[in-house]
Amino acid sequence: MGALNEGHYNVVLENGVKLDDFEHEPETVAIEDAVKVLLQGLGEDVDREGLRKTPLRVAKALREGTRGYKQNVKDIVQGALFPEVGVENGTGLAGGSGGLVLVRDIDLFSYCESCLLPFQVKCHVGYIPSGQRVVGLSKLSRVADVFAKRLQDPQQLADDICLALQHGINPTGVAVVLRCSHIHFPNIQSAFLESNHKRLSNIIVGSGSGTFESHESANWVDFFSLLRCRDVSLDNIRSRKLVKGSWCPSQSQKVGPSGNPNMETAVASIVRSLGQDPCRKELVGTPNRFVKWLMNFKDSNLEMKLNGFATIPLKTTGLTNHKENIRSEINLSLWSLCEHHLLPFYGLVHIGYISGEEINPIGKSLLQSIVHFHGFKLQVQERLTRQIAETVSPLLGGNIMVVVEANHTCMISRGIEKFGSNTATIAVLGRFSHDHLARSQFLQMIPSYSL
Amino acid sequence: MGALNEGHYNVVLENGVKLDDFEHEPETVAIEDAVKVLLQGLGEDVDREGLRKTPLRVAKALREGTRGYKQNVKDIVQGALFPEVGVENGTGLAGGSGGLVLVRDIDLFSYCESCLLPFQVKCHVGYIPSGQRVVGLSKLSRVADVFAKRLQDPQQLADDICLALQHGINPTGVAVVLRCSHIHFPNIQSAFLESNHKRLSNIIVGSGSGTFESHESANWVDFFSLLRCRDVSLDNIRSRKLVKGSWCPSQSQKVGPSGNPNMETAVASIVRSLGQDPCRKELVGTPNRFVKWLMNFKDSNLEMKLNGFATIPLKTTGLTNHKENIRSEINLSLWSLCEHHLLPFYGLVHIGYISGEEINPIGKSLLQSIVHFHGFKLQVQERLTRQIAETVSPLLGGNIMVVVEANHTCMISRGIEKFGSNTATIAVLGRFSHDHLARSQFLQMIPSYSL
Repeated sequence: MGALNEGHYNVVLENGVKLDDFEHEPETVAIEDAVKVLLQGLGEDVDREGLRKTPLRVAKALREGTRGYKQNVKDIVQGALFPEVGVENGTGLAGGSGGLVLVRDIDLFSYCESCLLPFQVKCHVGYIPSGQRVVGLSKLSRVADVFAKRLQDPQQLADDICLALQHGINPTGVAVVLRCSHIHFPNIQSAFLESNHKRLSNIIVGSGSGTFESHESANWVDFFSLLRCRDVSLDNIRSRKLVKGSWCPSQSQKVGPSGNPNMETAVASIVRSLGQDPCRKELVGTPNRFVKWLMNFKDSNLEMKLNGFATIPLKTTGLTNHKENIRSEINLSLWSLCEHHLLPFYGLVHIGYISGEEINPIGKSLLQSIVHFHGFKLQVQERLTRQIAETVSPLLGGNIMVVVEANHTCMISRGIEKFGSNTATIAVLGRFSHDHLARSQFLQMIPSYSL
Repeated sequence: MGALNEGHYNVVLENGVKLDDFEHEPETVAIEDAVKVLLQGLGEDVDREGLRKTPLRVAKALREGTRGYKQNVKDIVQGALFPEVGVENGTGLAGGSGGLVLVRDIDLFSYCESCLLPFQVKCHVGYIPSGQRVVGLSKLSRVADVFAKRLQDPQQLADDICLALQHGINPTGVAVVLRCSHIHFPNIQSAFLESNHKRLSNIIVGSGSGTFESHESANWVDFFSLLRCRDVSLDNIRSRKLVKGSWCPSQSQKVGPSGNPNMETAVASIVRSLGQDPCRKELVGTPNRFVKWLMNFKDSNLEMKLNGFATIPLKTTGLTNHKENIRSEINLSLWSLCEHHLLPFYGLVHIGYISGEEINPIGKSLLQSIVHFHGFKLQVQERLTRQIAETVSPLLGGNIMVVVEANHTCMISRGIEKFGSNTATIAVLGRFSHDHLARSQFLQMIPSYSL
């Protein structure tokens, strides 16, 4: 407990940035102003307590998430080149001359230049030493991170890492393979129509230089042999000939104005504050795509739909349960937006209730709609869980348990970078509040590997 | 490639520490001096290029790894408490009043107070909100990290996190469960005797406050239900009654002087430079244990053993292969110490060779001994791979392929924190240098999930 009372660490250092300086920098202030415009466009009160610091949080996340523009690969690599003898000429390849070095499964995240959302990267990076020297292993990860912390496209990211290592280490060859996962967010319309929407858009890209330049190089065979069971092979690497940018789900949206020019201008200002030119061809459509995506979460959309929902008559089915027991609806899809960071969270909702004589089972699609009604707005998971419970309660007899399991993009990106973490929340109403056995029975119904 | 030529980021900020200030701080200099004493005690030349910056690297890792002593939980939590309504009194538990919130699978690492080696932590932390307020989810992770970044014991770490959250959030209850993995390093003697040495020492600990204070609390049942398939249950949590500290493998060493009082004094000085009192009861035996462990890697130990090995006569067995084919010895255990960070790396070695008429197969135990001979000193993985290949080459006919797969503690701890990453290196001699098919055949013999 000592730390609670230690006040001597006034300058809070977080992720390499002195917070007090940071807050007053013009780029930070400009992003904050732009985020306020976005929140107002969503019909939100920028002064309500949950949102008050959201502009600063978003500014911090974006500026830290693009810090790679200011980092210098040469400094990182050159301090960590170590002399290392090889084997005698002609007898083999090992140590500082030849012999593949491959660091596997480096977790990174980057920001999509098409839509400004973070995407997750599993990075495999290798090189073949030459000139009797090797580089410190952690530098392969650090260099990859320099380029991940920019607005990126997967192929560009792989090429950037590869080229930087080739120039920085000057080895016989460099190989980079990335498995990138981009959140595949349905828009509010399609979410209500399709029940099993794909959660992530995945892509595998590769880049090679030196002896890895040709896809036919035998070195690639060694590389992929050491990546077995990672669903990665030369065959499933995306060809460069495919249209660039098509991996981002926002690219499949209809082209056309968002109807919110102020918000688009605000996003362009964010891009500029990150040191990037919003007129660069890869970024020119980004504000439009971002705003269209964001408008899925406008609160008034939701109210309209919710009114429609409330008028649906709940028909009594012929089947009623004469014996009281616990029923459940498991694995309902969830999509939502964290109001503290304007970053998506997504996962599964499980609803348990106690069916008695007077309770009519209702359809999964209706419960799924209720989840979407509460998901598609600015949220926190705790509130969402409560709201779902309160909404289904009058329909399902008042004894309700709701479990929400979600991955929060704000936990994998930003300074936290807790890639495997996920959050479960519980709400209980009526009998579930005090009947521990009922709670336990329902929890057993949830598949263990649901997320 | 832009970043290679951008020199405008002169003050390198890494993990919250300005590097130029850091290098001149007296604590850093004191740790550097102590590490030089340790390197000299190991019989190493502190001026050789691979070791020149090791004292600074160790100082940086240890000071960053114990930065939690200077962090303030109150600041972290209180800026992120959000008002959140619950449900009407008596009708249930949800939102800002009741309803478990559980963040699962947070990866952390900490430093063992018994031996100063980093250990890995899978952290699950939950609380039950009260007072109509919730805390930002990432703060649970940040608070856990404050206490992980200290010299710790697992039970103490769980208790520290629990108590800090209870005081900081003041909720109905807090529950913390940690699965800790400590590297289980054999000493040089036992490594040669036992073939399948346990790699990690695991322990599960828990701590609860408020409604989680009693182990019988029904809230724990909810908590563990949501942790199914994580090998965690109330039954396998270590009882507090067991002797504290016994989880650290170094505690099973024989008690007694290390014979290196200068080195022990140096380690005590490191502890002091981290702001801790080396006379505190948990730390009083730490310098002795650390030095005993470190002395496994003294280069002269190795030379003596290697001489012994060279005199072993290689008996010709009755069986010879008349047909030339690829043979392999898979999954030999590896333990070594990274010379750049004085941190362990461990994993598996696979040796392939081409058996012809004149090659007599040699026993696995002999190959395992060769791996240990090269492992038990200050190393880099690339060199180790080459040395193993060169040593087995005259015994196995000159056509050799060696693959080393290792987890580097220096990649999971320090600023890198790439928890899942691991490194593969290859050395090839003779025919394997140019026969890609032979290489590929051997690589197929390595089990995919060997690490």
